[in-house]
Amino acid sequence: MTMTRTQVAIVGGGPAGLMLSHLLHRSGIECVVVDNRTVEEIRTTHRAGILERDSVRLLAETGVYETGHERVITHGDRHGGIYLRFGGGSHHIDFEELVGASVWLYPQTAVFVDVHAARTRDGGDLRYGITDTAVHDLDTDRPRVTYADLDGRAHEVTADLVVGADGSRSLCRDHVEARSRYFREYPFAWFGILCEAPRSAPELIYTRSDRGFALISQRTDTVQRMYFQCDPAEEASAWSDDRIWSELQARLSGPDGFELEEGPVIERTVLPFRSFVQTPMRSGRLLLAGDAAHTVPPTGAKGLNLALADTRVLAEVIERAIGKGDLDALDAYTDRALQRVWKAQHFSYWMTTMLHRAPGQQEHRDFDELRQLGELTSLVSSEAGATYLAEGYTGWPTA
Amino acid sequence: MTMTRTQVAIVGGGPAGLMLSHLLHRSGIECVVVDNRTVEEIRTTHRAGILERDSVRLLAETGVYETGHERVITHGDRHGGIYLRFGGGSHHIDFEELVGASVWLYPQTAVFVDVHAARTRDGGDLRYGITDTAVHDLDTDRPRVTYADLDGRAHEVTADLVVGADGSRSLCRDHVEARSRYFREYPFAWFGILCEAPRSAPELIYTRSDRGFALISQRTDTVQRMYFQCDPAEEASAWSDDRIWSELQARLSGPDGFELEEGPVIERTVLPFRSFVQTPMRSGRLLLAGDAAHTVPPTGAKGLNLALADTRVLAEVIERAIGKGDLDALDAYTDRALQRVWKAQHFSYWMTTMLHRAPGQQEHRDFDELRQLGELTSLVSSEAGATYLAEGYTGWPTA
Repeated sequence: MTMTRTQVAIVGGGPAGLMLSHLLHRSGIECVVVDNRTVEEIRTTHRAGILERDSVRLLAETGVYETGHERVITHGDRHGGIYLRFGGGSHHIDFEELVGASVWLYPQTAVFVDVHAARTRDGGDLRYGITDTAVHDLDTDRPRVTYADLDGRAHEVTADLVVGADGSRSLCRDHVEARSRYFREYPFAWFGILCEAPRSAPELIYTRSDRGFALISQRTDTVQRMYFQCDPAEEASAWSDDRIWSELQARLSGPDGFELEEGPVIERTVLPFRSFVQTPMRSGRLLLAGDAAHTVPPTGAKGLNLALADTRVLAEVIERAIGKGDLDALDAYTDRALQRVWKAQHFSYWMTTMLHRAPGQQEHRDFDELRQLGELTSLVSSEAGATYLAEGYTGWPTA
Repeated sequence: MTMTRTQVAIVGGGPAGLMLSHLLHRSGIECVVVDNRTVEEIRTTHRAGILERDSVRLLAETGVYETGHERVITHGDRHGGIYLRFGGGSHHIDFEELVGASVWLYPQTAVFVDVHAARTRDGGDLRYGITDTAVHDLDTDRPRVTYADLDGRAHEVTADLVVGADGSRSLCRDHVEARSRYFREYPFAWFGILCEAPRSAPELIYTRSDRGFALISQRTDTVQRMYFQCDPAEEASAWSDDRIWSELQARLSGPDGFELEEGPVIERTVLPFRSFVQTPMRSGRLLLAGDAAHTVPPTGAKGLNLALADTRVLAEVIERAIGKGDLDALDAYTDRALQRVWKAQHFSYWMTTMLHRAPGQQEHRDFDELRQLGELTSLVSSEAGATYLAEGYTGWPTA
C-alpha cells in the first residue's frame, strides 16, 4: 500500500478536475488527481466545442499558458454569434453587437490537452489509468481515496477534502448525504458526426426544420462537426455516409440556396439527451463539480462551461476553507453553483424545445411546429429577444 | 321573408364584430351585424380585461367615443407593468421603462358596451337575439345569411362579403374550404372569481407557486378578479368562499408579507384552456375574425387583443377590395393576421408554461419546477429578458 497525504483529493482528471487542481495549485494548495481513464482515452473522446467568454478567460488569464502563448486564443476560433435557421432562411444573432461578447470554438479535447500540459509543467500529481477507485471516511476529518494502479498495487490518498469531478457516471455523488436528484429525459437524441470537409459557414448554424433539428458546427479547416436530431434508439452504424448527407441536406435546404459541404464521415455517434441535477453539491468534506452534479442537453453548449464555472467557485471556497481552517466557507458552494446551473438548465431546455421536433400526438405536433416558428420569428425580430438569447449563450457573470 | 341587401354581413356582434362594423361604417361601407345572443347576455358575461396599447388606440382614435369622452382612457386603469411573483417575492416588470408602453385594465364587457353605443349612435344595423343563423351560397358572388327573429319570422341578408366573428363556437369556420386546424390542449384550467374586496395591488400579479399558478387582477375599487390554476374537471360550485381564499392565500404567501385582501365571492367559474388556430382565415367571400379563427389560453391576455387586431387588418383589406371591386385585396388577410396569431400563441404558451405547475411524471415535475425558477430568475435579472416579455405583453406593431 502506497500512502499519500494531500490537501485536496480530486476524483476525475477531465477538464473540470484538472482546472480545479490548476487553480488550487496557483493558490498554494496541494492536490492529487486520480482518473481511471488514460490520458489518451480522454484526449481522443470528442465532446463539446464552444467556450463561453468566462471559460476563455479562465483558461487565458490564470496561467494555464505561458504568457503570449494562449492557445485558446491563438488556435481557437472566435465566434461573434450564431445563426438560427428556420423557414429555409438563416438569421444571424450577433453576440458582439448585442452584448459585446463572443464565444470561442475550441474543442473540449484541446482544453484537456492544454490544462494537462500546464499541470504537468507545474509538477502536478496526476494519476491516470488506475482502477478500483473508491472513497472512504467522508464523515471524518481524514477522508481517503483508494485505488489500484496498472500493476495492481494498492494506493491510498488521504486528504482534507475530496472533490468528485468524475463525470456523469460519478461514483462520488452517491456519497452525498440527503441528496435530491432532479432529471428530465427527452424523447430524442443527437446523431453526431465528424467529417472531412471544408467549413460550410463561419459560425454555428442551429437549424429547425420540419424533419427535426440540425446543427452545423466546425472543428478545423478540413474537419467539421455536425449533428441532427434522431430517435434515441437509432444505431449509428446503420447510417451510411449517403444516408447521413441526404438527411442533413434535407434539413438545411432552403430557398436561400444554402450549400452544405459534404465529405467522408470519419466518426458517427448517437449522443444521449438528458437533464440532471443533484443537490446539494456538497456533503461534509466531499464536493461535486461538473457533470458529477449536473448534466444538460447539448443544445446551447452549456456542459463544459458549467463545469468550468463550478471549478472557479469551488477553488474560491476551498481556498477560504483551507486558509482559515474553517469548513463553513464551503457552505456557500451549492447555492452559488446551483444558481447558474438552473439558469443553464432552463437555457438548454429553451434552446432544445425551440428547435427540436417533439414526438407525440400528431395534432399537438402540428400546433407546436407553427408555434415554434412564431417564437423564432418573434425572437429574431426583437433586439431584446436576441439579446436575451445572447446573454444566455455567452454566459452569465459568475455569482 | 324579410330581405336585406348590404355590402358586408357580419355574423357575431361581440367586440370583434362590432368593431369591424364600426371601422367599415367609418369608411362608408354598409354592413349588417347579426348575433344569436342578446345584448344583455353579452354585456354581463365577464371575460378578459387587459387591452394592449394598440387596442386602446383602436378604441380611442377611431371615433368610437365623442372627442374628449374616451371612456377607455377616463374609466380604464393604465397599468405600466405587471408583477411576476415566485419564490415568495414579487418582481416588477416595468413596461413604461422597458418599452415605453402601457396596457389598460378595461373589461371586455365595457369594450362591448362602448362600441355597441357607438354603432347605435351611428345608426348601425344590429340584430341581436336571433335564432337559426345560417350562411349560404358562399361560392357565389351573392353570399347570404339567413336567420329567424324572436317572433319566428324568416330574414335574409344578401351581401358582397360575409365575416364570421362568431366566437370560439363559430358556425362560419366550417365553411372555410381546404382548412387546417391546429390545437393544443393543456392539462389544467383556471378557476376564476369575482369578489367584493379592495385592490390587493395596483397592477396584475402573475404568480408561480408550488401549488400552481395564481393571478391577482383588478376590476374596480370594490370588485376584484382573481384566478388560480385548477384541474379541468373541477366543479366551481364545490368551492366555498373559505376554500377559495385559503387556496389563494397559500399561493400568494411569502416572506415579503404580501397581503391578499379577501371578500365575498360573487361569481366563480372554471375557464377552459386551449390553443386553437384555423387556417386559412378566408375562403372566397367568407372571412373569419377573432375567436372564430383562433383561441389562446388566457395567460398573457391575448384573446381580445388578437380579435381587435384582426378587425384592423380586415377593415383595411375589405375597404380595398370593395373600393376597387377586386377580391384580390383580400388575399393578404390570412398571412398578415396569422403572423401576429402565431407570435401570440407562442407568447401565451410561454407565459403559461413558465408559471403553471404541469401535471405528469413526478420526477419531471420536480425538475421543471426548479427549471421554471431558473427561468424566472434569469428573466427578472435581465433587462433584455424583461424587455422581450414587455414587448409581447404590450403587443407587437401591426403588420
